Amino acid sequence: MFEKVKVDENECVRVSRDELFRVVKEVFVALGVSESDAEIVADNLVMADLRGVESHGVQRLKRYVDGIKAGGVKINPDIKVVKESPVFAVLDGDEALGQVVAYKAIQMAIEKAKKNGVGIVGVRNSNHYGIAGYYAYKIAKEGLVGISMTTSRPLVAHTGAMEKFVGTNPISLGAPVDGEEPFLLDMATSVVPSGKVEVYRRKNKPVPGEWAISTETGEIIDDPNTILSPKGAILPLGGLKELSGGHKGYGLAVLVDIMSGVLMGATWSRHVGGTSDRKSDVGHFFMAIDPGAFGDAEEFKKNMKKMIEELKNAKKHPNFEKIWVHGEKGHLTMETRLKIGIPIYKKVYNEINEIAKEVGVKPLQ
Amino acid sequence: MFEKVKVDENECVRVSRDELFRVVKEVFVALGVSESDAEIVADNLVMADLRGVESHGVQRLKRYVDGIKAGGVKINPDIKVVKESPVFAVLDGDEALGQVVAYKAIQMAIEKAKKNGVGIVGVRNSNHYGIAGYYAYKIAKEGLVGISMTTSRPLVAHTGAMEKFVGTNPISLGAPVDGEEPFLLDMATSVVPSGKVEVYRRKNKPVPGEWAISTETGEIIDDPNTILSPKGAILPLGGLKELSGGHKGYGLAVLVDIMSGVLMGATWSRHVGGTSDRKSDVGHFFMAIDPGAFGDAEEFKKNMKKMIEELKNAKKHPNFEKIWVHGEKGHLTMETRLKIGIPIYKKVYNEINEIAKEVGVKPLQ
Repeated sequence: MFEKVKVDENECVRVSRDELFRVVKEVFVALGVSESDAEIVADNLVMADLRGVESHGVQRLKRYVDGIKAGGVKINPDIKVVKESPVFAVLDGDEALGQVVAYKAIQMAIEKAKKNGVGIVGVRNSNHYGIAGYYAYKIAKEGLVGISMTTSRPLVAHTGAMEKFVGTNPISLGAPVDGEEPFLLDMATSVVPSGKVEVYRRKNKPVPGEWAISTETGEIIDDPNTILSPKGAILPLGGLKELSGGHKGYGLAVLVDIMSGVLMGATWSRHVGGTSDRKSDVGHFFMAIDPGAFGDAEEFKKNMKKMIEELKNAKKHPNFEKIWVHGEKGHLTMETRLKIGIPIYKKVYNEINEIAKEVGVKPLQ
Repeated sequence: MFEKVKVDENECVRVSRDELFRVVKEVFVALGVSESDAEIVADNLVMADLRGVESHGVQRLKRYVDGIKAGGVKINPDIKVVKESPVFAVLDGDEALGQVVAYKAIQMAIEKAKKNGVGIVGVRNSNHYGIAGYYAYKIAKEGLVGISMTTSRPLVAHTGAMEKFVGTNPISLGAPVDGEEPFLLDMATSVVPSGKVEVYRRKNKPVPGEWAISTETGEIIDDPNTILSPKGAILPLGGLKELSGGHKGYGLAVLVDIMSGVLMGATWSRHVGGTSDRKSDVGHFFMAIDPGAFGDAEEFKKNMKKMIEELKNAKKHPNFEKIWVHGEKGHLTMETRLKIGIPIYKKVYNEINEIAKEVGVKPLQ
């Protein structure tokens, strides 16, 4: 039994995957979202919790509900295909729930890749789409290599800057592995995603690394409340200095802004809005590639397996218990939580039940 | 007059771009490389020096010459298209000079992108291809978004490991900007490329950051000789710990190994050979995307310009003189060096002239 995050059972209630899914889905349906769309969003949020990425899980339900209530998220969007070829497409999300339009986009990318080797589908005019890895994982489960990127609201001070300016802009890659769960890289291009800072805020503890600066003095700060306020900004992957490669994390954030923002006709960096903003104009980029079109699909999966085994069996550093590959911790956490339930913080548990009550849905059992 | 790297004029000789190009080209021709292929390699190496990336410039000439002499690099390769569709292709480089097959690959990617919106061309069985940015830049100069990635020989200890195992595997993205030189990100996925360590070895100084570990104890080391020997390994971008995001740099290195290695039928991580190895089986990944196919090409370039201006005009951190965007330092350095010449270390200058003499080429004037 492995869980990526250490769980304090006194602070949490364990809820089964299906029960959590039911309540989240029913809340969206009660708000007017179609049954099938509600299932997509619920699956996405619950998957984040299953895999140990609670920052992107059901604790965000309130934000989504607020976004719908504020009119920043349309429940019956008119999603349009604005460009299309046999291998690519651009969708206008019409301010839909990010998950709904992103799910449509990967279905198209998968279909194009299966038919023509490659499928690239971009989205403009969308909202927060949950974990980037959800989409790369789904594509990889189809036997394809999947890439998923999204713009996100400004939380990061790029190298040389002293304000929240670029997003934590994640990059995810999923790839099928012979007889095993996919390889799954899912990373913010900042040193940490904001969710990690939120974890320390909840614990009322300083963050344990050089993760952020003051936007007033430029100094490294560790108070999570300040970091998440306008007085703080997260650092790019690589940290404050060019010496440690901070300009690379900054560059990767811009790469994501170009591919999923500028290229797709969506906005970028500091113009990107949050879930409850009116017209957040989030952009996504998805790519699916069929390894069978570029070579031999079976050999690809076998070589992926071989590469992963080699990486795990390298000479081990004494400070580490073992060598992990990307996705492995998430897969094991998912396995565990499907058996013993998903730990939900009591505060979140109560919040979900209040929302449920408010919209007339049977609360978590 | 700006140069990315501080130049000690006492240690260097300034050589004009054209003269450096001439000698490098003629050396390759003297070794039996065709005139047009020699021009491609010379342009690639000299471009690195022009842009201030000397580690990938003409100081590598000896390695290429040695590679050809050792038979690890074929001068008259039979480059084959092993897979092809209107939007993608896979080439077998037949152990060609990396630049030669990579140049062919981007020509194909550019043509496909101009015709069909997207061009993805992979290469297997190649050699070191110089700076990744060369190819992304060339694609961007055609008005397209260009991506360039390559596997490289094992120099980096991935998170949890204590040996040279994965490559410094660079990622480059170039994108056209209205009325200006392209945006050009060109980054190793390690905290630094090995070339940066070589700079300190030449100066006989310890490296100034947490760039590498001992492969015997796992501790951070700063002696460039040890770092470049089997007793040292460079760290991934993000550093030694997961706390600072080291697993993300590791993940990006694997991403590059998957896209340009496994997917293209080339090898990966610790199996990749160096320039003078027999059959190094380096793999490359190139992608060209036409912004005009996904939206409006002019608007894309205007928005790129707007985004860049915004990034540069953000509230500045007091520790930084100014805010840069990717490619800017290289462009300014290129402008300067086209005027006043490229600084070549005397040792390198002499080495080039010895090679020239050996193969009967008129030395640098």
